[in-house]
Amino acid sequence: MKDFGNIKELFDQITEYWSPKIIAEVNDDYIKIAKLKGDFVWHTHEHEDEMFYIVKGHLEIQLEAEIIHLNQGEYYVVKKGIRHSPLAKQECWVLLIEKKETLHTGDVITEHSKTIEDQLK
Amino acid sequence: MKDFGNIKELFDQITEYWSPKIIAEVNDDYIKIAKLKGDFVWHTHEHEDEMFYIVKGHLEIQLEAEIIHLNQGEYYVVKKGIRHSPLAKQECWVLLIEKKETLHTGDVITEHSKTIEDQLK
Repeated sequence: MKDFGNIKELFDQITEYWSPKIIAEVNDDYIKIAKLKGDFVWHTHEHEDEMFYIVKGHLEIQLEAEIIHLNQGEYYVVKKGIRHSPLAKQECWVLLIEKKETLHTGDVITEHSKTIEDQLK
Repeated sequence: MKDFGNIKELFDQITEYWSPKIIAEVNDDYIKIAKLKGDFVWHTHEHEDEMFYIVKGHLEIQLEAEIIHLNQGEYYVVKKGIRHSPLAKQECWVLLIEKKETLHTGDVITEHSKTIEDQLK
């Protein structure tokens, strides 16, 4: 794991939507970046919080009770146990902060699911 | 602790240099923002990594063996046990990811030192 990175250059290397890449390791968390477009699977991280920070674009985080609208420079922490589904109507770049053991599709396995090994590539 | 925030608006509320503000809680880490200008104290976090992400400006992270130069959109993880001192020749805005128990002046107490309670205000 490299200690240094340039976010723009790292995003430029991403060619697949919904495929998070781990860019840093900080204590028990991984810092990841992902390009999102379209909808995703509803899922829950039973024991882990997950932070979304919008680097570019707009993201809707659908919760069961409301929809959180995030623009560039805005962030939201999905607290552990909260069922959610991100929706990007246009391409969106996000930085994610998650526990190392967090699976990005949570308790659901779908065609979107990437292993931690995939995310470290 | 609020789950949502706008980074630009939160930075606009900061009036003091070297005074980190906690903006989010994610698992065992705090996410903080700070405006930096000038030099800081050399210090070490014996047991905790610390990530610096540059939102605006330029930061030098002085290590004992080298100086890391960071521009906007670049990040660096100071690994646990590494003695370091940040230096901002001009005003710099940083986002920090740290363990909840991390003291921003590490093992050194100076006039810069802010308690976690101060950082939560």
